[in-house]
Amino acid sequence: MNYDDYLDLYKTKTFESMSLYFRAREIFPGGVSHNIRFFKPYPFFTLKSSGKFLHDVDGNKYLDFWNGHWALILGHSPPIITKKLRKQLKKGTLFGTTNKASLKLGWEINKAIPSAENIRFCSTGSEATMYAIRLARSATRKRVIAKVEGGWHGFNTNLLQSVNYPYEVDEGLGLIEDEGHFVESLQFNDLERSLKVLEAIKDDLAAIIVEPVMGGAGCILPQKGYLQGLQEFAQKNGSLFILDEIVTGFRFSYGAAMDNFKLSPDLFTLGKIIGGGLPIGAVCGRKEIMKLADATIEGDKSTYCSIGGGTFSANPLTMKAGFNTLKVLKNNHNIYEKINTLGEISRTGLSRLFSELNIDAQVTGIGSLFMVHFLNENVRSINNALDAALSNKEMLHNYNLALIANHNIFFLPGKMGAFSNANNKKDVSKLLEATRNIFENFNNKKNGKK
Amino acid sequence: MNYDDYLDLYKTKTFESMSLYFRAREIFPGGVSHNIRFFKPYPFFTLKSSGKFLHDVDGNKYLDFWNGHWALILGHSPPIITKKLRKQLKKGTLFGTTNKASLKLGWEINKAIPSAENIRFCSTGSEATMYAIRLARSATRKRVIAKVEGGWHGFNTNLLQSVNYPYEVDEGLGLIEDEGHFVESLQFNDLERSLKVLEAIKDDLAAIIVEPVMGGAGCILPQKGYLQGLQEFAQKNGSLFILDEIVTGFRFSYGAAMDNFKLSPDLFTLGKIIGGGLPIGAVCGRKEIMKLADATIEGDKSTYCSIGGGTFSANPLTMKAGFNTLKVLKNNHNIYEKINTLGEISRTGLSRLFSELNIDAQVTGIGSLFMVHFLNENVRSINNALDAALSNKEMLHNYNLALIANHNIFFLPGKMGAFSNANNKKDVSKLLEATRNIFENFNNKKNGKK
Repeated sequence: MNYDDYLDLYKTKTFESMSLYFRAREIFPGGVSHNIRFFKPYPFFTLKSSGKFLHDVDGNKYLDFWNGHWALILGHSPPIITKKLRKQLKKGTLFGTTNKASLKLGWEINKAIPSAENIRFCSTGSEATMYAIRLARSATRKRVIAKVEGGWHGFNTNLLQSVNYPYEVDEGLGLIEDEGHFVESLQFNDLERSLKVLEAIKDDLAAIIVEPVMGGAGCILPQKGYLQGLQEFAQKNGSLFILDEIVTGFRFSYGAAMDNFKLSPDLFTLGKIIGGGLPIGAVCGRKEIMKLADATIEGDKSTYCSIGGGTFSANPLTMKAGFNTLKVLKNNHNIYEKINTLGEISRTGLSRLFSELNIDAQVTGIGSLFMVHFLNENVRSINNALDAALSNKEMLHNYNLALIANHNIFFLPGKMGAFSNANNKKDVSKLLEATRNIFENFNNKKNGKK
Repeated sequence: MNYDDYLDLYKTKTFESMSLYFRAREIFPGGVSHNIRFFKPYPFFTLKSSGKFLHDVDGNKYLDFWNGHWALILGHSPPIITKKLRKQLKKGTLFGTTNKASLKLGWEINKAIPSAENIRFCSTGSEATMYAIRLARSATRKRVIAKVEGGWHGFNTNLLQSVNYPYEVDEGLGLIEDEGHFVESLQFNDLERSLKVLEAIKDDLAAIIVEPVMGGAGCILPQKGYLQGLQEFAQKNGSLFILDEIVTGFRFSYGAAMDNFKLSPDLFTLGKIIGGGLPIGAVCGRKEIMKLADATIEGDKSTYCSIGGGTFSANPLTMKAGFNTLKVLKNNHNIYEKINTLGEISRTGLSRLFSELNIDAQVTGIGSLFMVHFLNENVRSINNALDAALSNKEMLHNYNLALIANHNIFFLPGKMGAFSNANNKKDVSKLLEATRNIFENFNNKKNGKK
């Protein structure tokens, strides 16, 4: 089969989705509620999800490696969590007041990640990183934020800078120039060059913000010493070091990636996993900095940093989902052992397979996260977002679509995959077999070696 | 009883909350997850909610006029909604993909509010208004945003300007000067002065954003012609008119306040009610503008406006809660009749009572929203946020605390109240009797006439 065959196959089996997508375009810009959820020719429409599967409106059942933007570490609707949520539904979904459920989740995060001396819950990751920036500027009275090229910290105005290639071009319309004046970009894994940039902006540098493992940009690991180098510069310079752990928090172990990489951020953000599948964000960190957000002290507006919150912050449904998810993870450490092993054997297995098939590819990842990148003459290895951006993205899309169309395996095309506790070794075998099948059958001339 | 007696009473009955609050301060800045949820001496901790009641950890049961930041128009955990959500829990809480549930809610909003030609869902109101601003700047290629003093549009960096008195002072630390350069403030209900300001900034004016009824600032109604005047200026000037209907959407009738006030915004935001008690935000408006957010078209970053979305956008749990809430409202138009009447008789009853008791107060509101303001020599009526800010806020707090302490009636101190479908006329009577009791017993000399 070549790519056109897979495309035809996809269209044939997603007829109802196609019809819905055309209608969705009538009412939603691009037919979606999140830009990355679109993929060519059109995305299927999910009807329900359960365990490791997504079920679409045409009756197809996909093995899901997207796992709700990598948030669902226990899989879709784990009974132990839905049971708790069923109870909570009767007891309220939105108090709009202080509540004990938020304290329980707060304490649990604090116990698991001692650097979370203080925590402020909000409802999305975009909010969390925005608040981290505001806190950093409050604490340092400086303005400039350094982030890495391709680093994804949500859609907030402060950090929607240098996300997509070409990085020097604004991230679309409507972002006024002045907003970009105070964001500088670093190249991930190039410490020497990064330090040079930092040196040039150090006088007004409020903070460096970075993901421990680049997620949206393509599952890219830090090289030894890179993150430590950034942290060291920030510490020496009196600037803050902020880790965006929205993807990585509670992903690799019962704690945060800062433990794995031996880092001590001043502030860090959490999201995804800590909400147990419900909307959440959190900014956490040193008490001394976080207390700047205390608006209860007597004083005027010049004495505190105004951050959310929001209507839905610390709502009891999210708090219960998050707390009980953490409880399951805490009491079953073998979950991490299991999903990290699944990640490991997938990376190894895929790497071997591509090598055997003479496909020029690199499989990146760590723990339960993994991603395939197809290399080309310009990109020989994946060390930063630019490498990922200039790799063979078309081949990746075609591979992902073939997996969906012929093998009912779903990665959000172009994005990394994650294992959940709902997975087992058979899923790895299925992925490896499907991959072999696709590349043995692909019409390489037409599609495989572009 | 004087204020100190009420304070003592509150402390006596909220012993467990006090203990939790002290522990909450150890981990959450200010002990809260949203600044406004703190009130003196400390907020009680909610254990559960049901219908029109909040139950705290000390076993107190409060008649709740806060209703989850005014989001819960059907009250807490209405069985008809929780039943649907119980089912959905098993079918997934977070697909991370396009889904039919989001289409159903989208279509329903579009049918109810035809100005919602296109919709983008996100997860909070703060996100929705931020995206509206970005879209407005994209559509007009202009930069300046006019908002009214005291207008609350969430914690986003773009609009966290001139929210709290004194309006000319930054909203706390960490907001760099440059971010405020492109926001100008208007005085609500002073059309002449507003037009003068607009005239001065018209060349670079991207949009005017305003709440049809000011919510957080104190339940303040627009005077006849004010909003129309702003809209007219925007239209003539080629700027956008944005209504923030996060509070007012589906609050007064099955549609938006734009219908009640005969307005035609280019863009508007929704939240709260449309999520049925779960996290949501939405930016809606003219297709021609909204389509700028279509990132699926071939092109580069300069051809579209990048807005969320987010991990949790259009998640099926929120979509189902919202859709079914709208369905109940649509099929039971008497709900609006009922809650609007409850609002009306509360406003009339409270006004009469204050007049009878010789308390210098004004009760503002419309439909099911209402709020008491205590006047003083400087503030003779409530026409804008400044009036509300300079009114006797201490007396309001004391009144609200007395209601909580002695009558188990909860308004978030200093904030307006809202009726839900869980309320009935007895609740109004209870409020009126409690108010009479408080003011007949207050030690006026000490607390009432400051």
